[in-house]
Amino acid sequence: MKAAVIMGSASDASKVEGCIQILKDFGVEVSVRALSAHRAHEALSQFVEECNNDGTEVIITAAGMAAALPGVVASQTVLPVIGVPIAGSNLDGMDALLSIVQMPSGIPVATVAINGGKNAAYLALQIMANKHADLKEQLLAHRKQMNEACLKTNEEISKKY
Amino acid sequence: MKAAVIMGSASDASKVEGCIQILKDFGVEVSVRALSAHRAHEALSQFVEECNNDGTEVIITAAGMAAALPGVVASQTVLPVIGVPIAGSNLDGMDALLSIVQMPSGIPVATVAINGGKNAAYLALQIMANKHADLKEQLLAHRKQMNEACLKTNEEISKKY
Amino acid sequence: MKAAVIMGSASDASKVEGCIQILKDFGVEVSVRALSAHRAHEALSQFVEECNNDGTEVIITAAGMAAALPGVVASQTVLPVIGVPIAGSNLDGMDALLSIVQMPSGIPVATVAINGGKNAAYLALQIMANKHADLKEQLLAHRKQMNEACLKTNEEISKKY
Amino acid sequence: MKAAVIMGSASDASKVEGCIQILKDFGVEVSVRALSAHRAHEALSQFVEECNNDGTEVIITAAGMAAALPGVVASQTVLPVIGVPIAGSNLDGMDALLSIVQMPSGIPVATVAINGGKNAAYLALQIMANKHADLKEQLLAHRKQMNEACLKTNEEISKKY
Amino acid sequence: MKAAVIMGSASDASKVEGCIQILKDFGVEVSVRALSAHRAHEALSQFVEECNNDGTEVIITAAGMAAALPGVVASQTVLPVIGVPIAGSNLDGMDALLSIVQMPSGIPVATVAINGGKNAAYLALQIMANKHADLKEQLLAHRKQMNEACLKTNEEISKKY
Amino acid sequence: MKAAVIMGSASDASKVEGCIQILKDFGVEVSVRALSAHRAHEALSQFVEECNNDGTEVIITAAGMAAALPGVVASQTVLPVIGVPIAGSNLDGMDALLSIVQMPSGIPVATVAINGGKNAAYLALQIMANKHADLKEQLLAHRKQMNEACLKTNEEISKKY
Amino acid sequence: MKAAVIMGSASDASKVEGCIQILKDFGVEVSVRALSAHRAHEALSQFVEECNNDGTEVIITAAGMAAALPGVVASQTVLPVIGVPIAGSNLDGMDALLSIVQMPSGIPVATVAINGGKNAAYLALQIMANKHADLKEQLLAHRKQMNEACLKTNEEISKKY
Amino acid sequence: MKAAVIMGSASDASKVEGCIQILKDFGVEVSVRALSAHRAHEALSQFVEECNNDGTEVIITAAGMAAALPGVVASQTVLPVIGVPIAGSNLDGMDALLSIVQMPSGIPVATVAINGGKNAAYLALQIMANKHADLKEQLLAHRKQMNEACLKTNEEISKKY
Repeated sequence: MKAAVIMGSASDASKVEGCIQILKDFGVEVSVRALSAHRAHEALSQFVEECNNDGTEVIITAAGMAAALPGVVASQTVLPVIGVPIAGSNLDGMDALLSIVQMPSGIPVATVAINGGKNAAYLALQIMANKHADLKEQLLAHRKQMNEACLKTNEEISKKY
Repeated sequence: MKAAVIMGSASDASKVEGCIQILKDFGVEVSVRALSAHRAHEALSQFVEECNNDGTEVIITAAGMAAALPGVVASQTVLPVIGVPIAGSNLDGMDALLSIVQMPSGIPVATVAINGGKNAAYLALQIMANKHADLKEQLLAHRKQMNEACLKTNEEISKKY
Repeated sequence: MKAAVIMGSASDASKVEGCIQILKDFGVEVSVRALSAHRAHEALSQFVEECNNDGTEVIITAAGMAAALPGVVASQTVLPVIGVPIAGSNLDGMDALLSIVQMPSGIPVATVAINGGKNAAYLALQIMANKHADLKEQLLAHRKQMNEACLKTNEEISKKY
Repeated sequence: MKAAVIMGSASDASKVEGCIQILKDFGVEVSVRALSAHRAHEALSQFVEECNNDGTEVIITAAGMAAALPGVVASQTVLPVIGVPIAGSNLDGMDALLSIVQMPSGIPVATVAINGGKNAAYLALQIMANKHADLKEQLLAHRKQMNEACLKTNEEISKKY
Repeated sequence: MKAAVIMGSASDASKVEGCIQILKDFGVEVSVRALSAHRAHEALSQFVEECNNDGTEVIITAAGMAAALPGVVASQTVLPVIGVPIAGSNLDGMDALLSIVQMPSGIPVATVAINGGKNAAYLALQIMANKHADLKEQLLAHRKQMNEACLKTNEEISKKY
Repeated sequence: MKAAVIMGSASDASKVEGCIQILKDFGVEVSVRALSAHRAHEALSQFVEECNNDGTEVIITAAGMAAALPGVVASQTVLPVIGVPIAGSNLDGMDALLSIVQMPSGIPVATVAINGGKNAAYLALQIMANKHADLKEQLLAHRKQMNEACLKTNEEISKKY
Repeated sequence: MKAAVIMGSASDASKVEGCIQILKDFGVEVSVRALSAHRAHEALSQFVEECNNDGTEVIITAAGMAAALPGVVASQTVLPVIGVPIAGSNLDGMDALLSIVQMPSGIPVATVAINGGKNAAYLALQIMANKHADLKEQLLAHRKQMNEACLKTNEEISKKY
Repeated sequence: MKAAVIMGSASDASKVEGCIQILKDFGVEVSVRALSAHRAHEALSQFVEECNNDGTEVIITAAGMAAALPGVVASQTVLPVIGVPIAGSNLDGMDALLSIVQMPSGIPVATVAINGGKNAAYLALQIMANKHADLKEQLLAHRKQMNEACLKTNEEISKKY
C-alpha cells in the first residue's frame, strides 16, 4: 500500500507529521513532498504523474491561505485527493478551507477539518481499505481501541465529578 | 460496484439527483435513502450496518443546517463517508459546511463543496476506482471528455470576443 | 432533582466544571459523562436511555467543532437538551455554535453562548424550577444577589472615575 | 399549561405562527404579544411581570437584527426563556443569532435555529413536560409519528431511485 | 458640559478608561456607571432617567457579547447614545458589533469601532460641540495637533526608509 | 436647523429617501448631495467645507462596498458624521459596515444599521435636539406615538392569536 | 497594446464582458479564453506561455468558488496578473475572494472586487499606461469624464431633494 | 525606477519593511510615507500629486481597519495603486481586506493578501517590468531561485520523512 503526502510549504511539516506517522503505523509506504502549487508547479506535476504510475492509491495534500495545491493535484489525477486546510497567521484557516472545499464539478477534493492532518490519514486508510481487506480489519480494531479509550476516560470522568 | 446515498431529508432529493445519476452512468449500483440522523437514528444505524455487510464501497451523505448525518454515519462504519453540505434557507450552507467538515480526529468525513452532489459522485467513483481498474479507465476517459468540452467552449469563447 | 452533563471529550472538562459546580450548589444531583457522539455512540445511546428512565430532568451537552453530540442526544429523548458550543483551536467556536443551534424542526437543542457552561447550568435550573417551587425561590434569591453584587460594583466604579 | 410568545415586531408574526399552532395543538394555553424591547419596554416589563405571576411556564421570544428582546425578557424572570433569531433583510439572521445566543453568565436564553419558531414550540413543550406527565406521553407519541413519517418517506425515496 | 459613560460590566473598565480621560481632558463632567442591562435593569433605567433630567448631553455605552446595553439605554432616552462593541473572549467582538449596530428603526445607537472607546469620546465631544462653540474650537485645535503629530511621524518615517 | 445628506452614488437614493423625509418632517433644512469619495473627491471636500461654515449641524453619509465616504467626510470636519452602510449586490452590506464602523482613533463615524437610513435621521435629530429644546419635545412626542402604535399593534396581535 | 482575459468557465462570460469592452474601447487588443485551471490545465499553461512571448502586457483572470485560476496563471508568468472573484450560487463570492487574494509570498495576484470585471479592465489600463503615455492621457480624460458625470448627477440629486 | 510606499500609520511600519527591502533589492528608488487618509488628508493629496509628477510608477498603500487610504490614493491618480490590508487587533484583517478590495467601478485598487507586504513589492516589480526589460529578467531569475529553493527544501523533506 502506498500513499503520497504533499504539503504546500515546508513550514506546514509539523501539521502533517501526525498524518504521516499514522499512515506508517498502519503499514502504508508514504512518499512525502513539499511542493508549492505556485512556486514549483512543474515539479508538482511531475510528482503527481509519478503517483499516477507507481501504485500510489491516495494523495494527501495540505496547504494554507489561497490553498490551490489540492485542486491543482486533483486536476492531474483520478486518484482520490484529500485536502487539509492549514490555518495561517490570519483568518483561522477559513481562507484555506474555502479554497479547498469549493471545487468545481468534475474535480473533487475530499476535504477534512482545518489542521485535520490526522483525519486525512484515517480517511486515506479507509479509502485504501476498500481494496485491502486486512487494512479494514486494522481499522475496525483501531475503532474498537478508540472506543475503549473513550469509555475508560468516561469512567474516570463520571467518577471524578 | 455498490454505493449508498443518504440524504438527511426528502427535501434534499433534487440536490442529490445529479449525484445518483452520475453513479449509475458509471455502472454503480446505488441504494438511496432519506434518513435523518435526528428523526430516524435507529433506521439510519440499521442501514449503515447493512452497508457494512452488503459490499457497499462508499457512502455519500447529504444534509443541511446542523448537518450531523455525515458524522453519525462515519462513526458507525470504516467505509469512506463523503459529506455534501446542503444550503438551507439561511446562511448559504456555511452552517452545514462547518457541521460536516470540522470532524474530530479518528472519524473523518470527506467533505465536498456546498450543494456539490455531483462531485460527491466523482469522488466516490475515484475511491472505488482504486479497486476497479476498468472504472479508472472510465474516469480517465471522462476527464478527457471534460477537457475536450472545455477546449471546445474555449475555442468558441476565443472567437466570440 | 437530577441532571446529566455530557461533554464530547474529556478535554472539555475545564469548560463544564463551572456548570457542574453551580448545579451542585443548587442541590441538584449531577451525572457527568465524557461520551463522544462519534467515538462512543452506543455508550452514549445507553446513557441517554438511562437518563430517560432514572428521573433525570435536563441533559446538558458540551461539544466543539462539528458538535453533533447535542443533536444526537436530543434525537433520543424528549427531555430538554441544552447545548454548549466549545471553542476549539480554530474558528472561535463558530463551527460548534452553528453545528448545535441550527437543528431541524422537531428536535430542538436549547443553545447557550460559546463556552457558556455556566449559563447552561442556570438554564437547567430555570427549567427544573418549573416543577420545583423551592428551586424557583433559590433562583430568585440568586438573581437578587447577582443584582446586589452588580450594584455594589457599580458604586465602586462610579466613585473610582 | 400556559406559555407566552412575544415577537419583537408584528412583522415577525408569520415566523411564529407555526410555533403558536404547535403549542395549541398540544393543549397549551398561549398568550401572544408583539412588544419591542426598544419601542415598548414598559409594556414588555409589565407583560413579563404578568407571566411571572399567572402560571406561565415558558416564554418564547422571537426577534431580528439587534435582537435584545430575548435577553431583556430573560433579565426579568427566572422562567425559561427561549429565543428565536429572525432573519431580517440583510445578514441572513446572523446578527439576531449572535445578539440572542451570546448572553452573559447568569441570564441564559435558550436559543434555537434562525427562523426556528417550530422548534421553539417543541422545546417549550419538552420543558413543560418535565412537570406534566401526560404532555411527555404526547411528545413521545409525536416523536414516534415523526419517525414513522420519516421512514415512510424513506421507503418512497428508496423505491424512486 | 456633562456626559455619562455606562459599561455593561466592571471587567470592561480598562476598555473605557481612555474614553473617560479624553472627555475629562476636554472639560466634560463625566458620570461613570457599571450597569448590566441584564443584571441590573432597574438601576440602569433609573440612571438613564437621571441622565434625562440632569443636563447630560450624551450617553456612551460599552458592552460585549450579546450587547443589549446600548439599545436598552437608547430605548429610554432621546439623548444621543453611543455604543462601543467590546471584544470578548470569542468572536473578536463581531457579536457585540452586530448586537449594537443593527438597531430597529426609531431607536438609533451611534456605533463606533470594536474596542473603540476613544472614538466614542471624540464623537461625544463633536456632538456636544454643536451647542458649545468653545468645545468646537478645542476640537479643531485637537485635529490640528493630531495632524501635526501625523506629519512629524511622517517626516521621521520618510527619512528612516 | 440644517443637516446634510451625502450619498456615495445616485443609485443609493432610494435608500436615503426615508432619511431625508424624516428630517424634513421634523423641520430640518436638508442639503442632499451624491458625491463619491472616489470619483468626486474635490467636490466632496468643497461641500464638506461649505457644511463647516453654513450652520450645518450634522452630516449623514451613505455608501456601499468599500465605503470610504463617511470616513473621508469625517476627516474634514468636527461636525458629527453619521454613516449608513448600504448593502450592495454581494456580501449583504458587511463590507460597507466594516469600512464605515472600524474608524481609527480621533476620527469617529457614528454608524447605524445596514440600510438604516431612517435611523440615521433619528440619530441626527437626537444630536441636534441637544441644542434645540423644541426638537427634543418633538422627539419625545414621536417616541410616544411610536410606543402607542406599538401597543395598538400588540393589542391586535394578542387578540388575533 | 495587448491584454489577455481568461475566465475559469464560459458561464462567467457575462461577468467579464464589461471588462473586455472597456479594454477594447481604450484600443487594447484582447485575447479571451475560457480555460479552467482544473479542467484544462495544460491548455491553460500553453496559453500563459503564449502570453509570455507575444507581447501581452497584463493577464486578467476571473473565477468563482475555489478560484485557483488566478494563482495558477500567476505562478507561470511574471506579467502582472489581475484576479476577479466571481460570486457563485452560494457564499456571495467570499470563497472566490479568499481563494484569489490570499496568495503566498512571491506570486502575487492583483485582486479586485467581487464581480469587479470593469475595475480589472481599468487596473489593466493603468498598468499598461506606465509604458504607454497616450494611454495615460486617455485614462486622465476618462477620469475627468467620470468626475463630470458624477458632478452632473450630483446637481440633479441636489435639486431633486 | 521609482515607487512609493504609503502606510496609514507608523505602527504599520514593521508590516511594510519587507516590502521596502524587496523593492530596493531590485534597484527601485522608494519614497516611504506614513500618511493617514483620515488624519493627514491634505499632506496625502500633496504626496500623491508629487507621485503623479515625479516619475513614480507604482504606489503601494498599506492600512488597517476601515482602510480608506488605498482607495483615497487611487482616486487621485491613474498610477497603479496596490493595497495591503493590515490585520489590526480585532477581526484578523477582514475589515481592512473588504475596505480595500471592494472598490467601486472606475477606481481600482490592486489588493494583495492580508499583511501581504512582500507580495505588494513583487506585484509592483511585475508592473514596472512591463516597461523595464532588465527588471523582467531579474524577476525571471528570482522566480528561478525561488523555484530552486523550493525544490531543495522538497528534497530535504522527502528524505526526512
